[in-house]
Amino acid sequence: MAAKLSVAATVAVSFLLLLIPASLFFFFSSSSLPARLLSFSPCLSVASASDRPLKVYMYDLPSRFNLAMLSASDSDLSFPPWPDGSGVKRQHSVEYWMMASLFSQPREISRGDKTGADDGIRVVRVLNGDDADVFFVPFFSSLSFNVHGHNMTDPDTEIDRQLQVDLLEILGNSKFYQRSAGRDHVVPMHHPNAFRFYRDLLNSSMLVVSDFARLPMDVSYLRKDIVAPYVHVVDSFLDDDPSDPYGSRPTLLFFRGRTVRKAEGIVRAKLAKMMKGFDDVHFEDSFATGEGIKASTEGMRKSKFCLSPAGDTPSSCRLFDAIISHCVPIIISDRIELPFEDEIDYTEFSLFFSVKEALTPSYLLGQLRNFPRERWLEMWGRLKNVSHHFEFNYPAQKGDAVDLIWQQVRRKLPDVNLSMHRSRRLKIPDWWR
Amino acid sequence: MAAKLSVAATVAVSFLLLLIPASLFFFFSSSSLPARLLSFSPCLSVASASDRPLKVYMYDLPSRFNLAMLSASDSDLSFPPWPDGSGVKRQHSVEYWMMASLFSQPREISRGDKTGADDGIRVVRVLNGDDADVFFVPFFSSLSFNVHGHNMTDPDTEIDRQLQVDLLEILGNSKFYQRSAGRDHVVPMHHPNAFRFYRDLLNSSMLVVSDFARLPMDVSYLRKDIVAPYVHVVDSFLDDDPSDPYGSRPTLLFFRGRTVRKAEGIVRAKLAKMMKGFDDVHFEDSFATGEGIKASTEGMRKSKFCLSPAGDTPSSCRLFDAIISHCVPIIISDRIELPFEDEIDYTEFSLFFSVKEALTPSYLLGQLRNFPRERWLEMWGRLKNVSHHFEFNYPAQKGDAVDLIWQQVRRKLPDVNLSMHRSRRLKIPDWWR
Repeated sequence: MAAKLSVAATVAVSFLLLLIPASLFFFFSSSSLPARLLSFSPCLSVASASDRPLKVYMYDLPSRFNLAMLSASDSDLSFPPWPDGSGVKRQHSVEYWMMASLFSQPREISRGDKTGADDGIRVVRVLNGDDADVFFVPFFSSLSFNVHGHNMTDPDTEIDRQLQVDLLEILGNSKFYQRSAGRDHVVPMHHPNAFRFYRDLLNSSMLVVSDFARLPMDVSYLRKDIVAPYVHVVDSFLDDDPSDPYGSRPTLLFFRGRTVRKAEGIVRAKLAKMMKGFDDVHFEDSFATGEGIKASTEGMRKSKFCLSPAGDTPSSCRLFDAIISHCVPIIISDRIELPFEDEIDYTEFSLFFSVKEALTPSYLLGQLRNFPRERWLEMWGRLKNVSHHFEFNYPAQKGDAVDLIWQQVRRKLPDVNLSMHRSRRLKIPDWWR
Repeated sequence: MAAKLSVAATVAVSFLLLLIPASLFFFFSSSSLPARLLSFSPCLSVASASDRPLKVYMYDLPSRFNLAMLSASDSDLSFPPWPDGSGVKRQHSVEYWMMASLFSQPREISRGDKTGADDGIRVVRVLNGDDADVFFVPFFSSLSFNVHGHNMTDPDTEIDRQLQVDLLEILGNSKFYQRSAGRDHVVPMHHPNAFRFYRDLLNSSMLVVSDFARLPMDVSYLRKDIVAPYVHVVDSFLDDDPSDPYGSRPTLLFFRGRTVRKAEGIVRAKLAKMMKGFDDVHFEDSFATGEGIKASTEGMRKSKFCLSPAGDTPSSCRLFDAIISHCVPIIISDRIELPFEDEIDYTEFSLFFSVKEALTPSYLLGQLRNFPRERWLEMWGRLKNVSHHFEFNYPAQKGDAVDLIWQQVRRKLPDVNLSMHRSRRLKIPDWWR
């Protein structure tokens, strides 16, 4: 144990040295770099962003970083399915779906090719890092937290820590990582405790997160990072086309889940008290088990509005369960982050209440009972239109969650370049945030 | 005068009221808005950014806001040329070139059209605001500062102030401005004193600036705004193709300009002392007159390196004069902003010295005298390749400064949408910067 920690510390220190900004070096140092590195730029030409696919290089990590955690075969020929019956772990499996989207298409493709723009998702895997726009690090950091120890003090959590140490060493030795200080690297950290020991050492990379609740502001922020949806745990409502969608949902407001939560999630216990004793409200304290998920699936499909309060963090899987159940989300979480919000206006299909509003007696239910039927039908129609953006498919499909995540990555490229260019020339700390 | 100020105050207050975030309104208020407004979104579909041209609506302002200041005919049929011999005013004329780029092509085009993507610049003017991605405000705010009064206390400066008041009123009455709080509006403010009386009221719009020196951090910042080049005042070096480019530039280091400047520009006076008495250095204190500009044109073409120290603000026209003269810029300005820096790596053709390095006796000249000939030739070659990005043409051309400015605007669209969507749903002040 002591030896392990010592290795960890050494790696961490070496890694910190690697992160010293290039701008601190004497300016002539750049002249000694190979010409190929000097000319590197993910957007070489001054051409506009285009429909060409995003080219992603995926690090070839040992399977203990990813597929081996699935306790399934890690055959190279087919991608192992996500294990059934792991509801809670599934919600943070974006790391798995991103890897799968690249795994399914190991094509030899070079920078100039236009292939892949219009068929399927708008990302292609390149097998040579020199052809890549960005670099994907397929470490299942959320699953590693979930499977290595049942709580944060479990001795098995050391396995999680060691994986983080090993990953930092791999990245630190990569010429691709070194040349950008990781700025063009995409690292999933969706669970709030993912990569918890050393994530501050990856503060230059594009992190894929659920929100920023437990991430320091200098490690993760909206400009740099990608907010990804939770993977829904209730079943997709594919044949939701009744003649009377409003009438076929008798329950006004539905909630099923844990009511004792930390931080902003304390609102749940208060709501539980307020929601007791109303015929049109279904409010149930429960855990996410197989039976519970089935009950939630049914309940959400029978309800007009679905409560989506903050959990231990501002975000929660419940929002996405509501969306794919076409149940208008009632979002009570003042600091929530919403995926793809540059493309999706959530006010078109959700209602937002401040914590204060929600806790004003009879206010929330009053608003919902008086909510115009026509407007609810509009929102329901919109939910049916957007729900495919929150589906995770294998292979990924154009417009699904995985595709949109890669599009978010693509949008960050100008900022990645800007940051790299500034780091090469600035003589003082950057003032850009 | 008193009456004018009173009007100004009234307009300013009314305008402030318009800026009250929509999120403060009760959430049902959105349901009473016309459906067309609700569905507005510059990037309606979840399609990727593409090569389709940016669609710009240009406000039809009275000519006193723009062309009338040129003291030339404002005929509708041809765009008046920029007056000759106005070197200093010309450097901030980006507002003129942006207007010209739209003026030349008043085409009836609607959102779905793909016309214009591959021929010429990647922007088209739309005549209906409902078809627009963004809105251009063709107020010559820099020229207005320059022509209305010869200094900031001149009574004529009241004309500049009144134009700002009138513009705020026009925008405040526009449904397009109101629905976005100006977020999708592009307003040139290139001169550090442009729009100086009320620019804080346009803090949501995309401002076109030279740097952020005199702009408060909550009014203007890199994420939101566009840093545009100064319009060069020396002549373009179009036939720079000698057999011996290195040998044909006998002067090692060239500078011609004002040596008494404010703020960081005090470095100029110190440099002036240090650069005296060297045969290979041409350092001359001078004003930008017609003759002076001719002398600078000649001098830069005969020099290997051109000094580009901070002026009254971190940026200065001299950098762009050096670039289009293919004279390697020596940038001494720790807080300089560089146009198009996400696309252009200035270290490929410029050298950066901190103010401290530059003032270390004989250090800077020592570095330049020992600079490898091969590396200088590489930089010279790169300058020849990038210089067209700093040319302002009428009509604009693909890849020129005007085109790249519009591309910068296009890049901001996802952030504009993100900001608008968040403003509609947030219950607390946004934490995104």
